[in-house]
Amino acid sequence: MTSHAYYNHENHGPYELIHIGELPLISGETLHHCQLAVATFGQLSAARDNAILIPTWYSGTSKIIQDVFIGAGRAIDPDKYFIIVVNQIGNGLSSSPHNTVGAQARAHFPKIAIADDVSAQHRLVTEHFGLSQLALVMGGSMGAQQAYEWAVRYPTMVQRLAAIAGTARTSAVNQVISDAIVHGLRADPQFGAGDYVDCAAVSAGLQQHARLMTLHGLSPEFFEDQHYESLGFDSVAAFVDSFMTPYFAVMDPNALIIMLQKWRGADVSHVSGGDLKAALGKITARTVVLPITQDLYFPPSVCKAEAQLIAHARYKSIDSPFGHLGLFGADANWVRQVDVELGDLLR
Amino acid sequence: MTSHAYYNHENHGPYELIHIGELPLISGETLHHCQLAVATFGQLSAARDNAILIPTWYSGTSKIIQDVFIGAGRAIDPDKYFIIVVNQIGNGLSSSPHNTVGAQARAHFPKIAIADDVSAQHRLVTEHFGLSQLALVMGGSMGAQQAYEWAVRYPTMVQRLAAIAGTARTSAVNQVISDAIVHGLRADPQFGAGDYVDCAAVSAGLQQHARLMTLHGLSPEFFEDQHYESLGFDSVAAFVDSFMTPYFAVMDPNALIIMLQKWRGADVSHVSGGDLKAALGKITARTVVLPITQDLYFPPSVCKAEAQLIAHARYKSIDSPFGHLGLFGADANWVRQVDVELGDLLR
Repeated sequence: MTSHAYYNHENHGPYELIHIGELPLISGETLHHCQLAVATFGQLSAARDNAILIPTWYSGTSKIIQDVFIGAGRAIDPDKYFIIVVNQIGNGLSSSPHNTVGAQARAHFPKIAIADDVSAQHRLVTEHFGLSQLALVMGGSMGAQQAYEWAVRYPTMVQRLAAIAGTARTSAVNQVISDAIVHGLRADPQFGAGDYVDCAAVSAGLQQHARLMTLHGLSPEFFEDQHYESLGFDSVAAFVDSFMTPYFAVMDPNALIIMLQKWRGADVSHVSGGDLKAALGKITARTVVLPITQDLYFPPSVCKAEAQLIAHARYKSIDSPFGHLGLFGADANWVRQVDVELGDLLR
Repeated sequence: MTSHAYYNHENHGPYELIHIGELPLISGETLHHCQLAVATFGQLSAARDNAILIPTWYSGTSKIIQDVFIGAGRAIDPDKYFIIVVNQIGNGLSSSPHNTVGAQARAHFPKIAIADDVSAQHRLVTEHFGLSQLALVMGGSMGAQQAYEWAVRYPTMVQRLAAIAGTARTSAVNQVISDAIVHGLRADPQFGAGDYVDCAAVSAGLQQHARLMTLHGLSPEFFEDQHYESLGFDSVAAFVDSFMTPYFAVMDPNALIIMLQKWRGADVSHVSGGDLKAALGKITARTVVLPITQDLYFPPSVCKAEAQLIAHARYKSIDSPFGHLGLFGADANWVRQVDVELGDLLR
């Protein structure tokens, strides 16, 4: 794999690249030489019954998952559990447009579905780690989408499920948001159908991406009550220009588009001909559904409707003025409440 | 003025083009040969005391203002009032990029401020119509921005003020929304810095414009409770593709950008060195501030904070699942409640 100024160990901490091999995709294509970047924490028990799987969310990596959720004395405790954080395909660390060579490089990287990530992860978990059960599969946002897919496809393996700020099926409005963000990247003349020479050249597209992530990623309350001040910014403009814009400016537009299209198409009911009730009815895991009350991408109403289709689901909407980006962990109150819920689920 | 497939009498009903002349702009530039497209309803009383002025909102014209607010037996009753509906500069009917010839044509049309519209309208009202008072200045969205500017700048003329779904100063978040929409138009390679030959060539930019107007113009409730079905659409995608997209696809991107920048910069406190309290303190009109509860552009909280700075303001947030586009008048319940408020104000 080639080096990259952002997608590397310096920025994202220790992870191991694990070869998954030829990955048949639900599109009918095959992802060649699939590799997953995996960070693990803690030790597998002798009974092999203490594994927790956490797939990553949009644009994030194993690093932020570690920072937000994992810690001694916390619910996701490496002293008790063997925690596998797997970077989703296309996130820049696992197989992604920029680190693929040959026919599938860059603009030619195949379209990936949440289902494909879970197929790759299933191979990782069963063949690489030799596990036949997972004490918990959890994730936020696109991580929740992957966790739902796990619980639907492999119910006998998934003992517990925690879906945080995400849905099993992407809503129609969320699809319009995704379309708008993808368009914002592709419309940059420097994008050149994905064959740009340098990500930095697509800065106008990435700046628009940051604007749109700002408008839906946070919440009206975040701006009205000036919560950006708690992050050290004295105005909305400063927050956009000095936090959101640089945060995304270093990322690869092709990678972001691969993830956005995956997000847009997420739907566990692919297993049941579009019948969401039938798909969610397959879940046997003890489940907690934890939307963020102010989330504009995955609003509580949609999460609640899904929770009602799951046999053993606890539903709790947790307040955060940060909206969807409560996931970033800056709202200690939200982090604490999620920890309590995860602790209860694991007991 | 040149002909246009959309901006004409066939689509927008009767209006008169009134020559305002050279218009000094607050930017320091001058808009040459300014013309305002004006539709009037009813008769001016002998005492010249029954005039109502209604400036238009973003992308709308006098036609939709007539359809939504004006009618015999309604609050804005042409049997009682002389109603002047004035199209804002840059809306396609009044002086606009596409209908201007010479050095200010198309991409070279000067940047306009809300304050400039009100200066032109003041000339219209005083010099053309010979009026020294207005029984009511009212408007929705950018129309409210103009109405506020009127009441601050000409308090002795404006007896009543009705600000519907709009603010006196555009919030910082609303500015980010405006930036994103402008970027969506300009990023289209066919936009060509505004020197495109045919609006239709900028269809990708206009489609993105429609997506972004969808995401903020309506409300989460509109989509979750499927209110688009009441408009005859069976899905969010159908609503976007068959209503929002064609609605805006016929408009001129240069015109939309002129209006968006005007929207972004709206701020009555230009009269008081940025002191909003001082500016709104100049208002002597009997005022009603009527946000739409679900409005994502001009949320009630911002409207309420402004209303509290006005001496004689009644504040009432009116519910509509249509959000900001409640202004389109499809929600009969919202229209009825606004009528009641306007009727009370005029009594």
